[in-house]
Amino acid sequence: MRELEDKIRTFGKALNEDVLLVDMFLNHQVDCELMDHIGDEFARLFADAGITRVATVEASGIAPALMCALKMRVPLLVLKKSASAIMNENVLQTEVFSFTKQKSYLLTMKQEYMLPGDRVLLIDDFLANGEAALGASRLIEQAGGIVSGIGIVISKSFQPGLKRLREAGYNVKALAEIAGLQKDHIEFVPEG
Amino acid sequence: MRELEDKIRTFGKALNEDVLLVDMFLNHQVDCELMDHIGDEFARLFADAGITRVATVEASGIAPALMCALKMRVPLLVLKKSASAIMNENVLQTEVFSFTKQKSYLLTMKQEYMLPGDRVLLIDDFLANGEAALGASRLIEQAGGIVSGIGIVISKSFQPGLKRLREAGYNVKALAEIAGLQKDHIEFVPEG
Repeated sequence: MRELEDKIRTFGKALNEDVLLVDMFLNHQVDCELMDHIGDEFARLFADAGITRVATVEASGIAPALMCALKMRVPLLVLKKSASAIMNENVLQTEVFSFTKQKSYLLTMKQEYMLPGDRVLLIDDFLANGEAALGASRLIEQAGGIVSGIGIVISKSFQPGLKRLREAGYNVKALAEIAGLQKDHIEFVPEG
Repeated sequence: MRELEDKIRTFGKALNEDVLLVDMFLNHQVDCELMDHIGDEFARLFADAGITRVATVEASGIAPALMCALKMRVPLLVLKKSASAIMNENVLQTEVFSFTKQKSYLLTMKQEYMLPGDRVLLIDDFLANGEAALGASRLIEQAGGIVSGIGIVISKSFQPGLKRLREAGYNVKALAEIAGLQKDHIEFVPEG
């Protein structure tokens, strides 16, 4: 997606070989018009997948996932990183390890917000090692849903996540693919 | 806002005198069309406030705040509940106590995403004791912004938050105001 790549080129910061900072437009300050266009693009890419529900992992996935669900006219389900005190009945959980934070969390959802056979489009802002996306997919399937597509805003394709998800059989599309990072240098995978 | 009150009447669950569960359409499963209309309503209510930026606290405030910022054509700033490992420079923080979770967190933002004199509309999903909204306002002001409006989706007006914010001089508008809760009974403050 050209507009997104241009934003990454202009405002993204490669801190080192691992970390791409995009908090100027994606996950701290949020460029709402860009989110709108990202929603359109995901809706276009997965138009033929028969999607009945969009899901994401809180918190940075919410903005692109909301715009996508709005365009597709389906409900959004926000998977929680912890069970709140008032969320205690019919809850499903799976353990996910975060490499960024170097600790595990319990990804949580209520069974009632997934219907058997729901065709789910999972949206997330970043794909790196794939732990969050694999955990979310596990949880969706545990609840009786079918992961019919995975839409990623930025894939760090030099890390194993994209390969792991595709090897697991998922239909993954990333709007921008990073081939490699070095301090102050961002290399993209050519589009198409 | 009639459509929101109808949703609360139909799908909200009063668990006891304190807790109103709206995870069917607001903060777990998300009704995207409702969020779209909530965005319109906030944009209308604060149309004359000269807003240059919308801010919210992650995670449940993001959906209504994004729709509002999109309609107002201003950037959204998502205040974080913890500083991430890669977010270490020019960071502002304030301590906020969560009554729901019975513990404090450090509300965090980067200075660079607030311009001096920015007129900020703070959006949040719930107002109860007002700790989160007061903390967010403190942080915005510390960064040089002006809190020019506070928009709340659901105010539990029998708790002290609304009164505290108004006594502090803020222009607060709530789309639905709850007068009281009892198990399986929700009492609204009449509109207007």
